[in-house]
Amino acid sequence: MSQLIEQAAAAKKAAGALAHLATGIKDQALEAMAVALEEKEDYIINANAKDLKAGREKGLSAALLDRLALDSGRVAAMAEGLRTLQSLTDPVGEIISMWRRPNGLQVGQMRVPLGVIGIIYEARPNVTVDAAGLCLKAGNAVVLRGGSEAINSNRAIVKVISQAATAAGIPAGAIQLIATTDRAAAVEMMRLNDYIDVLIPRGGSRLIETVIENATVPIIQTGIGNCHVYVDGEADLEMAEQIAYNAKTHRPGVCNAAESLLVDRLVADQFLPPIIKALEEGGVEVRGCPETKKICPSVKVAQEEDWATEYLDYVISVKVVDGLDEAIEHINKYGTGHSEAIVTENYNRARRFLEEIDAAAVYVNVSTRFTDGFEFGFGAEIGISTQKLHTRGPMGLKELTTIKYIILGSGQIRR
Amino acid sequence: MSQLIEQAAAAKKAAGALAHLATGIKDQALEAMAVALEEKEDYIINANAKDLKAGREKGLSAALLDRLALDSGRVAAMAEGLRTLQSLTDPVGEIISMWRRPNGLQVGQMRVPLGVIGIIYEARPNVTVDAAGLCLKAGNAVVLRGGSEAINSNRAIVKVISQAATAAGIPAGAIQLIATTDRAAAVEMMRLNDYIDVLIPRGGSRLIETVIENATVPIIQTGIGNCHVYVDGEADLEMAEQIAYNAKTHRPGVCNAAESLLVDRLVADQFLPPIIKALEEGGVEVRGCPETKKICPSVKVAQEEDWATEYLDYVISVKVVDGLDEAIEHINKYGTGHSEAIVTENYNRARRFLEEIDAAAVYVNVSTRFTDGFEFGFGAEIGISTQKLHTRGPMGLKELTTIKYIILGSGQIRR
Repeated sequence: MSQLIEQAAAAKKAAGALAHLATGIKDQALEAMAVALEEKEDYIINANAKDLKAGREKGLSAALLDRLALDSGRVAAMAEGLRTLQSLTDPVGEIISMWRRPNGLQVGQMRVPLGVIGIIYEARPNVTVDAAGLCLKAGNAVVLRGGSEAINSNRAIVKVISQAATAAGIPAGAIQLIATTDRAAAVEMMRLNDYIDVLIPRGGSRLIETVIENATVPIIQTGIGNCHVYVDGEADLEMAEQIAYNAKTHRPGVCNAAESLLVDRLVADQFLPPIIKALEEGGVEVRGCPETKKICPSVKVAQEEDWATEYLDYVISVKVVDGLDEAIEHINKYGTGHSEAIVTENYNRARRFLEEIDAAAVYVNVSTRFTDGFEFGFGAEIGISTQKLHTRGPMGLKELTTIKYIILGSGQIRR
Repeated sequence: MSQLIEQAAAAKKAAGALAHLATGIKDQALEAMAVALEEKEDYIINANAKDLKAGREKGLSAALLDRLALDSGRVAAMAEGLRTLQSLTDPVGEIISMWRRPNGLQVGQMRVPLGVIGIIYEARPNVTVDAAGLCLKAGNAVVLRGGSEAINSNRAIVKVISQAATAAGIPAGAIQLIATTDRAAAVEMMRLNDYIDVLIPRGGSRLIETVIENATVPIIQTGIGNCHVYVDGEADLEMAEQIAYNAKTHRPGVCNAAESLLVDRLVADQFLPPIIKALEEGGVEVRGCPETKKICPSVKVAQEEDWATEYLDYVISVKVVDGLDEAIEHINKYGTGHSEAIVTENYNRARRFLEEIDAAAVYVNVSTRFTDGFEFGFGAEIGISTQKLHTRGPMGLKELTTIKYIILGSGQIRR
């Protein structure tokens, strides 16, 4: 038995007991984990320093080094995240619905944990704590496979939180970190159908494609967002400008940021000059279709691939379209099914956009930046599903559960 | 572009329009498809005769030939199935819940079709009609890939129902049959992530393993059932005998039939002789553990692999266990997470069994044979999920949908 299988088997064993552990014990464990992070802050920051040193030697970018770095404030934030989870309702055991059949059977749907969740992620060590806490609160064991850049930080963090959790009554083995970062182990993990119930990759499109290509364990795809804002001919143009500017510039590096602006020809002359001026003054590179270029000569000319690109940066593509039909067609063709917004005062077009856009989150008169578990009121988030199976959009605690049917009877047999 | 991709692309195009088609049009189409099946009965039965002839020449078993064969009654039953779907509530468009956030946003979950569903199945041509009807009613396009044994029947059926559907207003291309039965095409289909949203394999364990191994499209695993009946020390033994007998013999070839009987040592002497006598008289081969053999010398001795075997036949394994703990451990170890039953009059043990058994359907004092979309009241069924992602247990119309978030606002931006 490889070490990986041993770890996954230990997680599976823990999951059996964890599935019906009292909420009180889980919450106490979350508190104990938070306290342990705070108490072992130096130990964790020292381990992180090794990763930072190796990262600098490897020539990681300043942005990546920043995502990797831990200091006292960031460790405190991780602890705070665990405390927030304590206040959230435990989804496990909820009877979602129960009904009676003509033969007297009671058939009910009970919410239960998924079992063992595998998380494959990249540099940020805070994901280690977040993911472990969320999985635990929803009654799941977790097998974590972080990026090689953060291996020392992750080892230290998992050692600290895992000891604290076990001491607080969580079954041993519930939080596993794959100790090696070689690729073969990652691929092996993706095929452990006997031990892992669900895989959630968190990271860039290359990571996600690798998981899709290699996994036999069911996956929840997350987070690729080529998001659009469509400004309708009957939009409140001031509102449209605010929404477009916010969706692009509030935090360009995240998946719910807008990458493309579509504008109804009817209002292009009026709307484009001020928004493009604002975007350019905000440091955004604008790549426009020929019509946009004609109206605002300062923009670059967009190429075909721009319509399909998730920049995750201070870049936006702009296209003048022939009304709602072309906007919907364009979005359903080039979008990644993440977050799409229309700005309009027209009832019918708002309704059609909501109906006909095929995406996880469809907005009327709101910035796409709200696709987020916290903003939706879930209190926590493990990622944003962009696939259709299981769930779509932000995933909170409920989305880390499944159901089982419970059937109560009095001797019924099939005739 | 291969012919397969052309077909999948046509299905995807149709799915876009189908997703927001009025229920009335879908129901009229289901009726038109039913009428067409009845009117073209001879055409379909003639095509089926070719398959039967080829099957006999290939030496298919009598059971397989029976599953393949169509006659007037079976064609009428397929038409009737389509008519039943008309009376079921259309799940599409339901707002499952909607709430208001402190900033005034309304966030709602709307039920929407999955999109394009790929079905990979084996011999029975009635699956072709069932699957097409269910997918259509839930607003999905479907790509069907049936077994080679039924290719002529499936071609005839899809031609008939697809023409009728299109004439009744369903977007052309919504029902696709992969015309070839070669393996490479099946594997290609399993990897068409750009066109197919979900794959549902329906058939034996070999088919399902092949799909898991090769697919990159998300899968819903169905139907492998190594189901148990556990007779507790405080069971009503008469009820237990009826349930065990029914679960094994009512229809041994289906996935919710019991394959294994566990009996608390406390009642083994009393319970085993009459149930084993009844089973043997009913033509069932009984394979028992050494203790069972001691009590009932007529049984064969069970081997280790018997505990893990889904016989789908008149065979059952029987094991005497040391109470509930051993029963739960045995079931969670050897079971396939399908349907598991306890027979008991003891409140706490009933409750523990419901909590601790990890399966799609967990029963107290009921035959496992009830795990079925019709018996649960869904009115229809496309299969029984034995995975945890997306759904578990019988899948009706709702399970062929996903959600999208719709967010209504008045200019909200992130700060």
